[in-house]
Amino acid sequence: MDINVVNALTYEDFVKLFGNVVEKCPLISAAIWSHRPFKDLADIEAHITEFIIRLPDSGKAGILRCHPDLAGRDLQSGTLTRESQEEQSRAGMTTLDSAEVLQMYRLNSEYKERFGFPFVICARLNKKADIVGQLSERLKNDRAAERERAIEEVKKICSLRLRNIVLSDIQTKL
Amino acid sequence: MDINVVNALTYEDFVKLFGNVVEKCPLISAAIWSHRPFKDLADIEAHITEFIIRLPDSGKAGILRCHPDLAGRDLQSGTLTRESQEEQSRAGMTTLDSAEVLQMYRLNSEYKERFGFPFVICARLNKKADIVGQLSERLKNDRAAERERAIEEVKKICSLRLRNIVLSDIQTKL
Repeated sequence: MDINVVNALTYEDFVKLFGNVVEKCPLISAAIWSHRPFKDLADIEAHITEFIIRLPDSGKAGILRCHPDLAGRDLQSGTLTRESQEEQSRAGMTTLDSAEVLQMYRLNSEYKERFGFPFVICARLNKKADIVGQLSERLKNDRAAERERAIEEVKKICSLRLRNIVLSDIQTKL
Repeated sequence: MDINVVNALTYEDFVKLFGNVVEKCPLISAAIWSHRPFKDLADIEAHITEFIIRLPDSGKAGILRCHPDLAGRDLQSGTLTRESQEEQSRAGMTTLDSAEVLQMYRLNSEYKERFGFPFVICARLNKKADIVGQLSERLKNDRAAERERAIEEVKKICSLRLRNIVLSDIQTKL
């Protein structure tokens, strides 16, 4: 997708296309539409990052709280967003055996109890074993450091989702 | 619903219950969960208002852009949120004749073209004729003033949605 095509989108089409690059936070894409014209995809990404960074700590935690658990209730009940479903599936979260499901449930619960938000990791960049490992490891962080750490993962997820939208659009056009 | 019940909710249940008090912006409820314990419903409302006020102008416009048109595409195609459907229905937006639908379409288009966000009004507090009148009237505002004006409407909608959640819960319990 050419950046001129993106810059020509109405806010309605822009939010429809990019509304879930930050999970369940269409507010963010809707906000950065104000900064058109964008120079390129990196410029869109930079505006999203800027918006997130300037939020108060509660807002950053709020972004995290809009994310589903990995291998959690939404996956079991089929209520994940399309993007999350795809990412969790690729990371092997949909084919865990019952012992692994229980392990994820326990670690997720411990994490949420400790931090007040869910464990967020860019599933596309991590395999199953790495995810479990990092979940155990990051449980040792203090809350402020872990919030920032998790927001870094949100940015990675956002970056890949942005790229994915552009690529699928080109594929549709071919 | 007793405020102690609200304060005892996990962030997951809190976001499930209050996630749409600001249309399609669960980020906001998810953020203000950080401020528990709440003193009362007014305290929850005050935290939401505070969060919105502190957003940059782009963020306020972003909130508005998460709202559907009145008597617009989402109403026609049945894709409104439950809350919006109920509010638009009560305000008579679901029973417009074809001339009225066209009038709303024209005014909404003109408004969006001028401001870059949709016309937002607390439908519960306005009848059909008032809505059309205000839409024509507010088209005369400058962009910054109208953004602030529309955010005032978002706060009214939020306030009534909050009250509605508490009331329905009490009714369920009776």
